Amino acid sequence: MSTPDLDDILSTLLSIAIDAGQMITAATPSTVSSGTKKNTADLVTETDRAVEAHVSTTLKSKYPNYSFLGEETYQPGMQLGAEPTFIVDPIDGTTNFVHRYPYVSISLGFAVDKKPVVGVVFNPFTGKLYSAVDGRGSYVENVNVQQSQRVRLPLREPEPMTSLSGLLVAVEWGSDRSGSNWQCKVNTWSRLGRSKDEGGAMVHSARCLGSAALNMCAVAEGTIDLYWEGGCWAWDVCAGWVILKEAGGIIVDANPGQWEVPVDHRKYLAVKGGEGQNDIVEEFWSHVEGEMQYES
Amino acid sequence: MSTPDLDDILSTLLSIAIDAGQMITAATPSTVSSGTKKNTADLVTETDRAVEAHVSTTLKSKYPNYSFLGEETYQPGMQLGAEPTFIVDPIDGTTNFVHRYPYVSISLGFAVDKKPVVGVVFNPFTGKLYSAVDGRGSYVENVNVQQSQRVRLPLREPEPMTSLSGLLVAVEWGSDRSGSNWQCKVNTWSRLGRSKDEGGAMVHSARCLGSAALNMCAVAEGTIDLYWEGGCWAWDVCAGWVILKEAGGIIVDANPGQWEVPVDHRKYLAVKGGEGQNDIVEEFWSHVEGEMQYES
Repeated sequence: MSTPDLDDILSTLLSIAIDAGQMITAATPSTVSSGTKKNTADLVTETDRAVEAHVSTTLKSKYPNYSFLGEETYQPGMQLGAEPTFIVDPIDGTTNFVHRYPYVSISLGFAVDKKPVVGVVFNPFTGKLYSAVDGRGSYVENVNVQQSQRVRLPLREPEPMTSLSGLLVAVEWGSDRSGSNWQCKVNTWSRLGRSKDEGGAMVHSARCLGSAALNMCAVAEGTIDLYWEGGCWAWDVCAGWVILKEAGGIIVDANPGQWEVPVDHRKYLAVKGGEGQNDIVEEFWSHVEGEMQYES
Repeated sequence: MSTPDLDDILSTLLSIAIDAGQMITAATPSTVSSGTKKNTADLVTETDRAVEAHVSTTLKSKYPNYSFLGEETYQPGMQLGAEPTFIVDPIDGTTNFVHRYPYVSISLGFAVDKKPVVGVVFNPFTGKLYSAVDGRGSYVENVNVQQSQRVRLPLREPEPMTSLSGLLVAVEWGSDRSGSNWQCKVNTWSRLGRSKDEGGAMVHSARCLGSAALNMCAVAEGTIDLYWEGGCWAWDVCAGWVILKEAGGIIVDANPGQWEVPVDHRKYLAVKGGEGQNDIVEEFWSHVEGEMQYES
C-alpha cells in the first residue's frame, strides 16, 4: 500500500466537515426524540447516524483501501489496527446537540500505525474550524467570518505553568455514573477545586463543556490549560490529539504514571504547551483519588 | 422622583454594552498580570475596573438620581436599597477572560424596589446580545452577524420537564472552596450526576461555564434547563434575572424551601419555563446535600 497523502486527506476532511456542518445546523433535534445507547445519559440522534453515513460513504469511495472507525457503527470488540484508519465522531457533544447548546463538533481524524496524523474539528454553530497535520502545526479559522484568517495555535505565547492553582481545567462527567469511576471523578474534582488549607489544589476553576474534541482544541489554543477525561473513545480524541500535539501539548494517562498512551486508551490528561508542562502533570497526578478503569 | 423610563434605560444600557464590549475585546489580559481579591481564584483585571468606571460615569451623568452598585466598587456592608439602582458587573467571567476563553459577558441590570426590571447581557466575543424589560419579553440577537434578527426567548417551545434525568444542569464552583459550602456543592453534584441505582438523579450532564449572567441567559434560551448557584452576587444575576423571567423561567432558593428570593440572595436555582417547572424544583431540592450559607 502506498504512503497516505496527508495533504490530500486533510483537504478531503476539511470539505467533509463543512458539508456535515450543514447537516448538523439544519437538524432540529430534541431531547424527547433522541435515542439512548447504554443508559439515559448516552444519547444518539438520527443526525449522528446520518452524518456518519455521509462521512463513511464519502471516505470509502475516495479511499477504498483505508479502514474506518466511527462512533455510530462501532461494535464492542472492534479494535483499532495499525492500518491507515479514519477515526470519526459525527457529532461530538450529542447531549449539547439535543439541548441545542451550541458547543458541538464533528471530529474527523486519521491514524497510521495507531498514531493520529491528521485532524479536523469543526463547530458548525460558532464556525470555528481547527485542523492539523503531523509535523506541520495546527491552525484555527472561523468560516462564519468573512475573510477570516487562519491562525496558528497556540493563540499566544504560553505563560509558564508553575502551579495548578493558576490553571483552568476541563473535566467531563461522561455517561458512566456509578462505581469507582464515578467516585474517582467526583473525589478528584473535589481535591482539585478545594482550597489549599483543606489539602486541595485550588485550580482557577473547572469547565465542563460536553465535547472532548472541542476541549482538546481549547487546550491547543491555550484558552484552557488542562483537560482530564475518563471514558471517552478514540473517535472523541483522535482529531484533537493531532491539533493539540502540533500546538506543543502532550497527552498522558489520566491515572498517575504513564507518560505515553495510545489514542484508544480511554483515559487521558491533556496539557497545553509551555514551560512547566511535566511538573504540572506530576502535580495533577498527585491529586487523583482512586483510579479510573475502562475497557479499551 | 419620577417613574423611571424603562425604554430609555434599555436603550442606554444596550449602547453602553456595545461600547464596553469593544473595551473588553481590545484588552490583552493574562493570568500573570491579573490581580486577586479574597483568594487566588477571585480574579480582577485593569479591564474590569476600567469598564466599570466607564459604565458608572456614563450612567451617573445621564441618570444622576439613580443609585449604582457595581462589582468593582462594592465595599462590604453596602446593601441594595429600594431606590432605582443600576446593578452592574463589568466583566462576568473574569477567570475566562484572563484565560481568553470566550465565555465572558458584561451584565447591566436595573432594579426598582429591589426588583430587576431591565436587563442587558452581552458577550462581545460571540456577539450575542440578550435584553429584556419587565413585562415585555426577552430577546437575543447577534451583533456580529449582518442583518441578525432579534429573536424572542425561549428559542423554541419548551419540552415538558418530567424528570431531572432528562435535563442539562449548569453548576458553578465559584471562589469559595472550603468548609460546608464547598462540601454542599461537591456532594450535591455527586448526587445529581450519579446513576439512579446508586441513589442519584442521573441528570443528562453538568455544564460549568464560568459566567452566571450567560448561564441565566442560556436557561432563558432553553439551551440549559437549570442553573444552581451559591456565592454569586446581585450584579452577576440582576440582568439575567429579567431576561429569564420574561422567558417564562423562575428563580428560587438554592437551598430547599423558599420559592421567592431577593436578587441579592446569593443562592439561586434558576429553572427554564415550561410544564413541570415546580415539580422539577422539588425534585432538585430533594438532592441538595447540606446547606449553602453566604452573607448577603
